[in-house]
This record gives sequence, structure tokens and C-alpha cells, in this order.
Amino acid sequence: MSIANAYPDQSERLRAVDPTRDILSSNDQQHWLAITDQLAARLAESAVERDRLGGHASFERELIRDSGLLTLAVPTEYGGQGQPWSLVYHVVRRLARVDSALAHVFAFHHLQVGSVLLYGNQHQQQRLLTATAQEHLFWGNTLNPLDKRTVATERGNGGFILQGKKGFCSGARGSDYLTVSAWHEPTQSLVIAAVPTHRPGITVHDDWDAIGQRQTDSGTVSFEQVEVLESEVLLPPGFTWSPSAQFRACLAQLVLVNLYVGIAEGAFEEAKRFTLEQGRPWLASEAAQAQDDPYLQRHFGELWVKLRSAQVLADIAGDIAQRHFVKRTAISAENRGEAAIAIAEAKVVAHQAALDASSRLFDIAGARATARPLGLDRFWRNARTHTLHDPVDYKIRDLGRWALLDQYPVPTSYS
Amino acid sequence: MSIANAYPDQSERLRAVDPTRDILSSNDQQHWLAITDQLAARLAESAVERDRLGGHASFERELIRDSGLLTLAVPTEYGGQGQPWSLVYHVVRRLARVDSALAHVFAFHHLQVGSVLLYGNQHQQQRLLTATAQEHLFWGNTLNPLDKRTVATERGNGGFILQGKKGFCSGARGSDYLTVSAWHEPTQSLVIAAVPTHRPGITVHDDWDAIGQRQTDSGTVSFEQVEVLESEVLLPPGFTWSPSAQFRACLAQLVLVNLYVGIAEGAFEEAKRFTLEQGRPWLASEAAQAQDDPYLQRHFGELWVKLRSAQVLADIAGDIAQRHFVKRTAISAENRGEAAIAIAEAKVVAHQAALDASSRLFDIAGARATARPLGLDRFWRNARTHTLHDPVDYKIRDLGRWALLDQYPVPTSYS
Amino acid sequence: MSIANAYPDQSERLRAVDPTRDILSSNDQQHWLAITDQLAARLAESAVERDRLGGHASFERELIRDSGLLTLAVPTEYGGQGQPWSLVYHVVRRLARVDSALAHVFAFHHLQVGSVLLYGNQHQQQRLLTATAQEHLFWGNTLNPLDKRTVATERGNGGFILQGKKGFCSGARGSDYLTVSAWHEPTQSLVIAAVPTHRPGITVHDDWDAIGQRQTDSGTVSFEQVEVLESEVLLPPGFTWSPSAQFRACLAQLVLVNLYVGIAEGAFEEAKRFTLEQGRPWLASEAAQAQDDPYLQRHFGELWVKLRSAQVLADIAGDIAQRHFVKRTAISAENRGEAAIAIAEAKVVAHQAALDASSRLFDIAGARATARPLGLDRFWRNARTHTLHDPVDYKIRDLGRWALLDQYPVPTSYS
Amino acid sequence: MSIANAYPDQSERLRAVDPTRDILSSNDQQHWLAITDQLAARLAESAVERDRLGGHASFERELIRDSGLLTLAVPTEYGGQGQPWSLVYHVVRRLARVDSALAHVFAFHHLQVGSVLLYGNQHQQQRLLTATAQEHLFWGNTLNPLDKRTVATERGNGGFILQGKKGFCSGARGSDYLTVSAWHEPTQSLVIAAVPTHRPGITVHDDWDAIGQRQTDSGTVSFEQVEVLESEVLLPPGFTWSPSAQFRACLAQLVLVNLYVGIAEGAFEEAKRFTLEQGRPWLASEAAQAQDDPYLQRHFGELWVKLRSAQVLADIAGDIAQRHFVKRTAISAENRGEAAIAIAEAKVVAHQAALDASSRLFDIAGARATARPLGLDRFWRNARTHTLHDPVDYKIRDLGRWALLDQYPVPTSYS
Repeated sequence: MSIANAYPDQSERLRAVDPTRDILSSNDQQHWLAITDQLAARLAESAVERDRLGGHASFERELIRDSGLLTLAVPTEYGGQGQPWSLVYHVVRRLARVDSALAHVFAFHHLQVGSVLLYGNQHQQQRLLTATAQEHLFWGNTLNPLDKRTVATERGNGGFILQGKKGFCSGARGSDYLTVSAWHEPTQSLVIAAVPTHRPGITVHDDWDAIGQRQTDSGTVSFEQVEVLESEVLLPPGFTWSPSAQFRACLAQLVLVNLYVGIAEGAFEEAKRFTLEQGRPWLASEAAQAQDDPYLQRHFGELWVKLRSAQVLADIAGDIAQRHFVKRTAISAENRGEAAIAIAEAKVVAHQAALDASSRLFDIAGARATARPLGLDRFWRNARTHTLHDPVDYKIRDLGRWALLDQYPVPTSYS
Repeated sequence: MSIANAYPDQSERLRAVDPTRDILSSNDQQHWLAITDQLAARLAESAVERDRLGGHASFERELIRDSGLLTLAVPTEYGGQGQPWSLVYHVVRRLARVDSALAHVFAFHHLQVGSVLLYGNQHQQQRLLTATAQEHLFWGNTLNPLDKRTVATERGNGGFILQGKKGFCSGARGSDYLTVSAWHEPTQSLVIAAVPTHRPGITVHDDWDAIGQRQTDSGTVSFEQVEVLESEVLLPPGFTWSPSAQFRACLAQLVLVNLYVGIAEGAFEEAKRFTLEQGRPWLASEAAQAQDDPYLQRHFGELWVKLRSAQVLADIAGDIAQRHFVKRTAISAENRGEAAIAIAEAKVVAHQAALDASSRLFDIAGARATARPLGLDRFWRNARTHTLHDPVDYKIRDLGRWALLDQYPVPTSYS
Repeated sequence: MSIANAYPDQSERLRAVDPTRDILSSNDQQHWLAITDQLAARLAESAVERDRLGGHASFERELIRDSGLLTLAVPTEYGGQGQPWSLVYHVVRRLARVDSALAHVFAFHHLQVGSVLLYGNQHQQQRLLTATAQEHLFWGNTLNPLDKRTVATERGNGGFILQGKKGFCSGARGSDYLTVSAWHEPTQSLVIAAVPTHRPGITVHDDWDAIGQRQTDSGTVSFEQVEVLESEVLLPPGFTWSPSAQFRACLAQLVLVNLYVGIAEGAFEEAKRFTLEQGRPWLASEAAQAQDDPYLQRHFGELWVKLRSAQVLADIAGDIAQRHFVKRTAISAENRGEAAIAIAEAKVVAHQAALDASSRLFDIAGARATARPLGLDRFWRNARTHTLHDPVDYKIRDLGRWALLDQYPVPTSYS
Repeated sequence: MSIANAYPDQSERLRAVDPTRDILSSNDQQHWLAITDQLAARLAESAVERDRLGGHASFERELIRDSGLLTLAVPTEYGGQGQPWSLVYHVVRRLARVDSALAHVFAFHHLQVGSVLLYGNQHQQQRLLTATAQEHLFWGNTLNPLDKRTVATERGNGGFILQGKKGFCSGARGSDYLTVSAWHEPTQSLVIAAVPTHRPGITVHDDWDAIGQRQTDSGTVSFEQVEVLESEVLLPPGFTWSPSAQFRACLAQLVLVNLYVGIAEGAFEEAKRFTLEQGRPWLASEAAQAQDDPYLQRHFGELWVKLRSAQVLADIAGDIAQRHFVKRTAISAENRGEAAIAIAEAKVVAHQAALDASSRLFDIAGARATARPLGLDRFWRNARTHTLHDPVDYKIRDLGRWALLDQYPVPTSYS
């Protein structure tokens, strides 16, 4: 299938009039984007088949690991690449064009790396991220403040025992390390820690079965009397949420933004390829070739405008996030608010672009594109599943409050 | 699952402010609608599972046959129920709420019955439709003027030999009788006939595998030296397309309209049920219950308006179609044009309602609704597959030409 | 200008595929519609000029009076035409195509006639409506429950003294009779009465100056010690709002619906006329004539679908309203709710159609259509002004509550 | 009225999360933006009144002249400010927030300055732009290649005689200098020149009367045997359109983009001010204050997203245009194409934002906002008039061809 070869070229063109390209134009970054495109080509080969199967993509996760991309955001002092989030998100986006499930797993790995940088002390950062860089560790997520079914109790020595369950644990399966949140009853607050996935008592269940994003390994994790050492506690019970700690939600929301953009780009590419390679003008059309049909050209024009709006807002949000992220503990509430607004703007537009592109793909390609072996419905199923992470209605409301009342969003895990 | 019980009530409410209810209020019609709702409840039980499996629903097709509904549009003089198309389409719509694939098979059966009434002479109508009524025959479609791969050659005695293939043969598998079109090279025109599906040389292939409408049995049929008797020829080579013969496309387009409306209604019902039974307000909402959330109420309001527009335009189009259909050979070009416009209006609105409802269902129900065992993505996959039958862009263009230039659509198999 | 001649024909075509035409097909109703079209042609002659001037259209109001149309909804037993509301609303719609301000004045006259029938006792109906029929009286509105600045105090003999002001008194200027609401402090409730406009103490101010609907005479009325006789009191202080009395809001909302539909139809007609008579293809178009441009045809198609949806929903709502109105005091809460829902559906769609048509008119006709002497912006200014009567957001919410919770709208003056 | 004071602050906030602010953050540029805001405050004082009057704003044009802003894009070597187009367009945008007609006049002045830089030889640039800088000359436009009614004939000496008319001559009235195009019959091509407005034979007519953009002085100019010296000819008959010369259309289209963005921003500001200062919650709302209403917040959120998309795409297009403009005669076809695409993207989004904001302003502010003395309909009338400059349908088509076929727009005066 030509999909593997086609993407790298297309990637270039997609950014042809992109003013942020200078940001990504260092030799270093070009290197990583080239590696990304090679990886994407490999993922593309089996993406349709794996979407059908669902479950765990152990082979493809090893391809990601082997690419070296897992160390992208790890600071150079810990042996990583020290690349900016703007690059990380571009990598996410490019992977999402062909496989938004594995792009998600990749992105969530980086979200945990970012969490260590935002939550951990220097000691912890050094220990965890040096290991991450050296061993190309894969991180997964069991940090979900809303799900309080996992409880932490003191075990003495400053450590804790975890007991309970967590749902929606993206990337947990097949991971080496986990960030985890647990509810601490005495202080009515959270404990957040980083523990090896293989710690006794931790079971990662194979129970993720959604209509889209099928290989994100987002199932349940259960904790059965799991020990957490004091040195593994990133944030102890009763800690105060600083703008810096609250910045994690910004990184997480930007993952979603770039996944949506990538899905939209992927659907666009398929629509284009289908039209150019297999298009036939409708019998009532006066065009000699499908590509000359005025209504088809209109679809491409409308889609392009949405896609471009999403891309540039996502790029801007990525730049703002990076600019503030590097301040770490000095991130102010205003910094965080500014980032949250830029991300929300991008998220609303990217949300709409992803849903529109993945549905309009069919208006463009026509009835033949519904053949199941082509797997073209996966873009919509992936977009539809992922755009429900948190309701866009409340993102729009947050932007409305900003526009009208000059209020930044109230910091939560979702805003 | 409560879906089976829930639908009958809902059906009633969906039409609570429906001015056409008087049309459907005769005892007779109430009887058939009650039977329809019972049948729908049976189909609903396995609809999610069968969507996953795809393939042929032989058991459920027998449920349809046993319901007696196959004789609905067969004139009373041939032993049928003699019900108007407006009723037939309401039955289609109600079935499509829970299973738009089998609703399609049911509707295409009736389309062939309509074809016999529009194409056949009185002799043929009597013979074929009497058998249909007595034996509850199931008709399938191999009539597709655009697909000229099946060729008819004279066999002497006024009959023909068919050789070749046909694609998109909805309802062919498991049928008793087929309408078929074949290309007649000498006259550069079509032959249209009605033949038993079990006629030697006819093979119905099990090769339909689309992302939606998975049990419509719409695969390929091949004809290997198939004999067609003179008495089976409905329209001989070189016949002139009368407005009456061209009226078949109106019946076919109305099938689509009502399938779209039914899919939209089904998605609406699921959204409502989910909200009332399992809804939880979003953490940023000030509502105590999901059903009180202002943005959720807005979704329902917007969806309802689209749904209602589609319903009433479909009802009007159904009434107009019925009013002209009964004229049979006396149908004028203007009658046909008037029906085509009303159907096109309904089709555009129903198309949008089906896509919107089946996607918005998820905005309403949220992330939990993406669990694959619930099968809620089937509404979108069904809508998306079926709305590509012919491009809505050209339906809008036809309406634009009507609005601007007072021109009826050029009669084709799609307009 | 050809507008006067053009409209009657167009009117016919606009309803060419309208299933409700049978409703309006009696000779009687054809007679009144023909008179309406003649009147519309007269109004069209000066509509652009009068929109510019604003103020009071005394000459044109006399044209309306002379047409005999003011007695349309007056029952035959009182000497009126006894026509159904469905006809009245069609007249409103046709007038609104060319002059939605005078259509509004005409419609508000009928709203007051309807108010006498819903609020008044048989004696009052007889006296007031007989006079209306015989003398072709023009009614205006000073009934506005939300504006409590006018206060009623007992004057003995069962009558009241009114003192204060009222805003938004559509049609008051130039009227013969008024319905009026006043606040009764002792009972904390309303008094509603019908009084001659020329009653001493009543002053109708010439202070209406809005961006649209400029000749609706919707200014302020002040009451300076105005006597109201007991026999003029339609509803006394402390009366209970019955579904029948609450039905007035349904009639009022239907006025808005039909004004919106008429504005949309008028904008559509102008777009069509401009294209056919003066259209030029854009330089980048491949069409030989503007009317053949694919994007122009698309605009017409999209507009037509919205227009048709609005028309049919408005027709249905009109029929339902008429069906229940005739029950008068026997109107049930459910009857009222059913009408309110049908009207809300039509209102949302008509609102969108009017705004879209009046803006899209310019996309179709292009830059030359912005010449001020053509006055083509009046459709948008009229639509925009009038669609703010009550917020469409809350109409959608009401429909959402109906769709989700099976709740009829809470009866108010606006719902 | 507080509008004058309010805008400067708002301007700041509008760009609060704007990544391009660094571009505009030099002291120099801050200086010019501060002057712009002062000028805007003066224009705001009479904007409503002047919109009503239409005609020529001689006093306000002198305010613009006195501000020194007319020399902004004149290179420093000719005594001007040598500021980039990105700044010029931001000035246009800020003026357009309160007065898009005078912003248009200001922008068209700069378009002619740009034309001299793109069309003129160094001698001409020096002479014309030095005079422009020293005398703060105001330029107007009579360059319109599509309008061939003005004809150039050789007068000997290398000069020409102009005879005929031109329409849509924005900014011609009250100007000191004009660029002019004329049709040269012998070569079937254009002559383009720069002449003083007061040259004998030139008459600027006061005949501009549109529904919006009422003070753009865009009427007819007639040429009665007007002499053009050889030294005044910027482009002689038969010249070849280079990408550099074709770049003028890019500058012109960017004027439109920024006018649209400014109109959208202005309408947004009015909606915000109205809500905060005069808003009342609707009677059916559960909010205590208008600003807390969930649907109002939603309007602001949706509007903000559109506005931001338009702003960032306009900023990006401005940067790209500036980057290429400085290459002057070395501008390549690809440079021009890249700029044209970025501008088209911004134009489509800004077009929609301007129409949406100027209509939605009323949904937000409600019925009271239709009072004519407030003049709030001018945003829509201005947006609607100006967005018809060239059809957005063909902009979308150009983008479709780019997206699908990798084709840059065919260079014309409009693309």
C-alpha cells in the first residue's frame, strides 16, 4: 500500500505555508521529524488491521521505543534529547495522521515525563528520567484525580500502601513505569507517586474495548496492597496545587489538541489520495475528472480552512506552553491561564476539524470508500471517541467567560 | 435490555405533534404499525450483535416475513393489504430506528413490488403479486441501470439470456424473486425483467462488507447463461422511459429518506435514554442532574428541530408520492417532477439530521457511550454509509435549479 | 418597478409543492389571497422609500383597511369573514414578503381580535367585533404584561383609572381600538381591557426608531387618568390564567413565525430576480451565465431547503393552532402545549431562514446589490430586529426540555 | 460615550494571548499603535453619526493626515517610517474596530503607496514617495483593471491622454494623488500611472451611496482629456505581469482581511460592553446577571474562537506578505502563491467572523440594541458590503484547488 511512502511527502506539503516551520527547522528537529515519518510509515502498514483487532500493539510499541523518540522531552542533563514540547506535539500529530491510538500512547508517555518534571523534586527527576533516557522506558498513566477508588494509607517510613482500582489508564499496559494518584482519606487529598509497573500487586487489565482509539491500552489497573516508597512520592498528601503542578493539565489538553489535528490531517490525506487515485465524477457532474468537480473542490477548500485554523492555533498553543513550561516552579497563575486559553482555543477548533474531516472524507470519496477493508471509518471513530474526553461545550463556556469576563479557566484536570 | 420495550412508547411520542397522524389513524394502519413495533422490538434484541457480525440475517428476515408486512403495498385485488406508500415508509422508518439494515432489506422488497406495478403489464402484476401475497415472497434488487456488466442476448421466443455481474444488489441474498436490468447491445438499451432468485445460473455472492448497513445483503450477483422468458420481461429493449417508469427512482429515493429519518430517530432515542437513565452532569456543570444541564438541553433542542424538519418533509413527500403513484401510467412529467422536488427537499434535511443525530448522540452521552459493547456507533456508520448512495451536493444543486430556474430534476435513477 | 407584478406569480410558485394548499384552496380563501397579492403589490411600490423614512404609514394603513382584510378573523356571526388563522397567517406572510413592517401592523390587529375572542365574554365579543367588522376598525396593542408601568386603580362602578406608560406598542399609532394591560397593586395582578384609542388621556407617541421594522408604530403610549368602564374590562384583577387565555401567546408567536417566513420568502424572491435579470458570472467562473454557476445554484438549493422547512413547519403550526383555537374556553393545557411546541419548532427554523436568506441574498447578488437605493438590506434589518423579540436560545431550550423531558413550555407571554 | 476611552484598553486585551505581539513590540511600533488608538478614539466619537450621513469625511481625513500615519509604509530613504506591512495592517484593523470606512480609506492610501513600490522605477518611487512623506499626501485609487471604460491614447512624448470613467474609486475623493489604470486599445493592454488628483480634466464624483462602508469615497471618477506625462507612467502598455506586479493584489486582499477582522473585533467589543453595562438576564434564564447566562457565555465562546482564528491567520498572512514584499522585483511566482494562499485562508475565516460577529452582536445584546441611535447595525452593513468585494465561494474554490491539486491561485486582481 502506498500509504507508507506517501505520508512523508504529504507531511511536508501540509506545512508548506506554515510560519512555525522556522521553529522546527533546526537540524536536530529535522532529524527527529524524519525519524517520526519513518516510524509513521511503519505504523501505517498495519494501522487498519490493528484498528480492527484492538488490544495491545506490543510490536509497534517496540518500534516506537526503538526509534529513540521516547527520550525527546527528557532534559539533556539526564541524557535525553531536551527537545521542546512544540516538537513533541508535532511528532504526536504526525503519528496521529496514520495511527492516533499509538500516537496517544506515545503522547501519554511524554505526559508522564512532563509530570515528573512538574511534580518531582530534582532528585526524583534525576533518578527517574535518567533511567527513562538510558533504558528507553515507556511510561503509562494511572493518574486520574477524579477516580478516587484507589486509596493510599501510610505504611510508615513516609511511604504508602495503595489499594483499589483506576479506569482509563492510557498506556499502562506494556509500560515500564506509572504515575499514579491515590486518595488519602485522613487529609481528604491526593498522593501522587511514580512506581514501576511491575511492582508486586499491580495488575494491568486487558479490558479496553471502545469504538475508537482501540489500541491505547486505556483499561483498568488494580492495586492490591502495593507498596510506594517515600522516595517515589512526587506529591504528598495535603500538598498545595501550584500553577506549576496545575500545568500538567495544560500538557494533557495539548495532547488531545494535537491528536485531533493529526486525525484531521490523516483524513484529509486519505480524501486527497482517494480523489486523485480513484476519483470518478458523479454522473450528474459536468467535470471530466473528479478533481475538477466544483463541489468536490469546495469540500477541499472548506476542509483546508478548518484544518489550517486548527494547525496554527495548535502551533501557537504549543509555543506558549513551551515558553511557560520552562519556568517550572516559577510558572505563575497568569502564565498557566494564558496557556490554558490558547490551548482551549486550539482544542475547540481542532475538535471540529477532526469530526468534520473524518466525516467529510466520505462525502468526498463516495460510496466506494465505505468498503470495510479500507478502514476509512477509523478516523471518525477515533475522533469521536477522543473528542469526548471532556465536553467541548464547557471548553466553549470557559472561552466565553474569558472573552466576556476576562476570567482564566478554573484550573482542574480538564481545563 | 429495555430497548425493546421502550420503543413502542417512544414511537408514539415522536409523533405527538405530528399533523400527519390522521393519515395513519385508520384502524387498519394502526394495526400494521402495532405489528411493526412488535417486529422492531424483536430486531432490537440482536441489532448490536448482528451489526458486529454483518452477513445475512436469515432468522430476522423470517421474522419480517412472518409479520405479514411483506404484502403491505400489494394491491388488494392480488391478495395484498393495499396500503399506501405513506404507511410503507412509516414502517421502514420505525424499523430503521433500531435496525436500518433490515429496514433497508424490507424497503427494497417493497421497491421491487412498486417496480412490478410501474413496469409490469396487468398480467405480470397479477401473476407476480398474487404469488407475493400468497407465499409472502421476499424480493431483492438486481436492477441497477448504471452497472452494465450484465448483458442480455435474445434467446428466441421473445426471451433473453443474461450473462454477467451486478454489484450493490440489496436484498438479493435470501430473496425469492429479483428484478433485474441487463444491457442489450444491439439496441444500446436496457431490458428489465423479474425472475425467481433460484433460477439456474443465478448466484448470489456473500461479499458485502461495508462499514455500515452491514446486513443489507448488498453484495454481487452473477448471471451465468440465465434464461429469461418473454413473460418475465417487464420492459423490453428500446422501451421509452415514461414518467411512470421513471417514478421508480422516486420510490427508491424515498426509501433512503425514510431510512435516514429512522436512523436519526433511533439515535435521538438512545441519546434520550442514556441521559435519563445513566446521565451524570459534567464536573464543571452547575446542574444537579445531567438532564438539567443547559448545554445538554440545547443539544436536544437543536436535534429535535432537525429531526422534526426531516419528519414533516418526509411525510409530505410520502403523501405526494402516494397521490401520484396511484395514477400509474397516467403519471405526468409534472407529477413526477413535483414528487422528485418534495423528495429531494426531504432527503437533504434527513441526510443532515441522520449524520448530526448519530454524531451528537455522543456529545450528549459522553465518553462512556463509546464502549463498544453498546454498539452506539452503528447509527453513524449506518447513516454515513447510506447517505453516500448519491451525493447530496447534486441533490442540493437540483433544488437550486428548481428554486432559481423552475426546472424539475432531470429524471435519472438517482433523481 | 416590476416587483408589483412579479409577486403574485411568485407566490403561486412558492407553494407549488405545498401540501397545505388544499387547506387554502376554497374559493373564498383564493379570493382573499388574490386581494392580499394586490395589496402587496401596492405596498411594494413604496416599501423601500418608507423603510428609509420610518414613521407612520397612514396612507398604506388605509390601503389595508380598504382591502377588507381587517375583518378576516372576525366570526361571521359578528359580520366578519370567519376565516381560519391558517389563512390569516398566510396573508401576513405574503404581505411580509414585500413589507414586513405593515405585515406586522396587520398581524397585530388580528392578534387583538384574537385576544377579544380569548379574553372577552360573549357580550364584549359581540359589541367589539361587530363594530370592528362594520367600521373596519384597526386595533393596536398596549397589552404587555411585563411592562408594569401602567397602573389600574378602581374608579367605582366596576371600572378603573389607568395611569402610566407602555413601551413597544405595535400598531397603536393610527389605531381605533386598543387592548391594554395594567398593573393592579391591591391584588398584585393584571387588569386587561379594550378601549378606544381616542379615549381622553391616551397619547400615542411617535418615538419608534429602530434599525428595522421601521413602520410598525411600536412606540410608547401614555395613559393620563384614563377611564375604563366595567364593560370594557376583559379580564379583571385576580383572574386565573386559563390555557385559553394563555393561548394568546401562541397566536402572538405565530405572528412572528409567519413574519420571519415572509421575510425569508421576500429575500429569496429578490435574490432570484436579481440573478435572472441582472446576474453576471464572476470572472473566475466557468459558467456562461450567472444562473449556471455551480456555487450560485448551491446557494439557491441550500436556501430553498431552509425556506421550505420553515414554510411547512409554519403551516403545520398554523393548522394546529387553528384546530385548538376554535375550542376557545375548552382549550386544555395539553392543547396549548401541543400548539406551543409546534410553534416553537417553526419559530426556530423560520428565525434561521430569515437571517440566512436576508444575508445570503447578497452572496448571491454580489457587490452591486449593496447600492442603497435598492434597499435590499431592509430584509436583514427587519429580520434581525424582529428575531430579537424573545431569545431563540430559550426557544431551543424549551424544545430541548420537550424532547428530553416531555415537558411542555411553561406558559408565559413569550412561550 | 465611553467608547473612546474603552478601546485602547480593549485593544490590549484582544491581543493578550497573541503570539505575534513580539513582532509588534518594538518601541517604534508601540508608538504608532498608541497613536492609532488615539486616532481611533477620535473617529469613534462621530462614527455612528457619520455612518448615517454617508458622504465625505473631510474633517476625519485630516485627523488621519495629522496623525502622521500616512507615511507608515513609506521607506525611510524617502523620509517615511519604513514600517512593515504587518504594522500597517494592525493599524487598519484597529481603526476598523470603530470605523471601517475610514480604515478603508487609510488602507487604500497605503495600497497605492505599495503600488508605487511594486510598479514604479526607482526614480518614480523617490519622487512620489518623498512628496508623500514630506507633504503627508493622501492617495486614492482609480486603478481597476476590470473597468475598461477609461481609455489611454498616445499623446506623443511617451505620455498619454486619458478619457472615460472609473467606478468604485475608493479614497479618490479628497485625495492628493491617484494611481490609475486605463485601457490601451492598440496593444489591448493596460497603462498604469500615478497622477495628481487635481490634474485638469479629473472629476471626482460624489455618487457613492451603499448600505455600508458609507464614507469610503468609493464613487466614480471621470477623466476628460487628462494628460499623463511619460514620467508618470508606472507600467506602459504591453508590460508583462511579473509576480512582483501581481503582488499588488495580495496587498489589496490583505486590506480586506484586516478590515473584516477589525469589524469583527469592533462588534465583539460592543457585544461585551453592552452585556457588562446594560445586560439583563432573559425572564426564562436562571442567571442572576446577564453575564452569567450559559447561552450568552456560549455565544461569547463561539465568537471568540472565530475571532481568534481570523486574527492569527491574518497575522500569519501579514508576516508572510511582508517577508516576500521586501524582495520587490525578486518576488517569485512561488512567493506570490504562498502569500496568496495564506491570505485566502485568512480571508475566508475573517469573512465569516465579521458576518457572524456583527449579526450575533444582536443575539447577545437583545432587542434594545436595535435602537437606531446606537447605530449597532453598521457593523453588519459594513461587513456585508465589504465581504462582497469578490465572492468567497471562489476563494474557497482556490483553496480547494490548492489543497487537492497543489495549485496556487491563478494571479488576477482578486486572487
